[in-house]
Amino acid sequence: MSVFRPGHLVGILGGMGPAATAEFYAKLIGRTPATRDQDHLRVAIWADPTVPDRVGAVLDGSCDPYPAMLAGARQLRTLGTTLAVLPCHTAHAFLPDLVKDSGLRFLDMVAETVAELERRAGAVGRVGLLGTRGTLSTGLYQDRLRGARFDVALPTEPTQVQVDFAILKVKQGDPKAAGRHLDDAVGAMIGNGSPLVVLACTELPLAADHLPEGRQAALLDPTDLLADAIIRECRVGAETSREAE
Amino acid sequence: MSVFRPGHLVGILGGMGPAATAEFYAKLIGRTPATRDQDHLRVAIWADPTVPDRVGAVLDGSCDPYPAMLAGARQLRTLGTTLAVLPCHTAHAFLPDLVKDSGLRFLDMVAETVAELERRAGAVGRVGLLGTRGTLSTGLYQDRLRGARFDVALPTEPTQVQVDFAILKVKQGDPKAAGRHLDDAVGAMIGNGSPLVVLACTELPLAADHLPEGRQAALLDPTDLLADAIIRECRVGAETSREAE
Repeated sequence: MSVFRPGHLVGILGGMGPAATAEFYAKLIGRTPATRDQDHLRVAIWADPTVPDRVGAVLDGSCDPYPAMLAGARQLRTLGTTLAVLPCHTAHAFLPDLVKDSGLRFLDMVAETVAELERRAGAVGRVGLLGTRGTLSTGLYQDRLRGARFDVALPTEPTQVQVDFAILKVKQGDPKAAGRHLDDAVGAMIGNGSPLVVLACTELPLAADHLPEGRQAALLDPTDLLADAIIRECRVGAETSREAE
Repeated sequence: MSVFRPGHLVGILGGMGPAATAEFYAKLIGRTPATRDQDHLRVAIWADPTVPDRVGAVLDGSCDPYPAMLAGARQLRTLGTTLAVLPCHTAHAFLPDLVKDSGLRFLDMVAETVAELERRAGAVGRVGLLGTRGTLSTGLYQDRLRGARFDVALPTEPTQVQVDFAILKVKQGDPKAAGRHLDDAVGAMIGNGSPLVVLACTELPLAADHLPEGRQAALLDPTDLLADAIIRECRVGAETSREAE
């Protein structure tokens, strides 16, 4: 029997990029407790990869992805979405506006990451952060992690170059080559004193699949947490337990 | 630069089952000629896994998935879908009604399969067919393949049992175990004189990933053909070349 309350429709505002969206949807399915199709969540995906570049937008305002993102969120609302997610870290810079303008309830991938690290508490040392230059420049993760009193380490320029290559290779359909660049970057972060590395870019988990198992143990993937948050929020009784808090 | 005409919105009527939908979307992305997000197609996915069982419907009419399927197609139409696909073989039994009642243009996975086999012409011997008991009972593939003068072989009962297990294991999230059952089934079909085996169930390609490479060469996956058909139909100039035919 499905563990979910009927009537939920999960909206995925995706396409940024498309491979990461497909991976996220597969992850949500894989993490759902189910033995038959009918146990799974109803999902609507709006994947518009023509949304202007998010990294350029937050780095220098050279383009504006927001109108296209809002149009997508409104499409998801039209379909009857009850709970939405945005599986793109850089785009999380626009999340507050998106919530306000679309009227949709969104889960927040950054908040889920901070909450998970707080659960691990003492077991977490310095937190290494890998993402696009755009995500890092917004300070989104750093500010909220530091606000929760975590020590955050950012990549050096040569390490960021490896991260840029890893993301590019995933977008070009070559996750194996991406894995080699990511391996270099994760190795550098660990070497610089961060035993735990947050993959704050949705392309990086696709590269991480090609890392040796030992390396993978050092990684935290916020999209795992976002998928689990959807499952948690759509469960029968989720509303009740929230009200009881 | 994108090879696609702008304005296209590909609608995927999915959820039947969900893992197969995610796999199909990933396949479409992987087969798209692209070096950056903006080269990819705009895609909307309606994935309702609570659609009543399609196999039961075609085998004994014990349930009716059609109203939920039509509701999904209408949702895709509301979003502005210009070209739709249904990545579920059993559900193709409902395709003619769906086209009529939704007003959407659908690509037909069975037609794409027959066309591909006709292109291979003399190189194709007897065609083995694996699918759900539902798909096979409709005669959908057999009739159209035999209509195109192909010799079609169906699985024996013990082989069908292996196919049933392979599909079940994929739906339960264990594609590796599914691969062992599929390997048995494909081996039996080849042993019975079918050098080429059509995987007429969207769960089977997920199991096929776990087959030895030699075995994989014997398989034809209609979802590959459906993804390629989307790319073909959305290309700049596709309209013109069709009109010129």
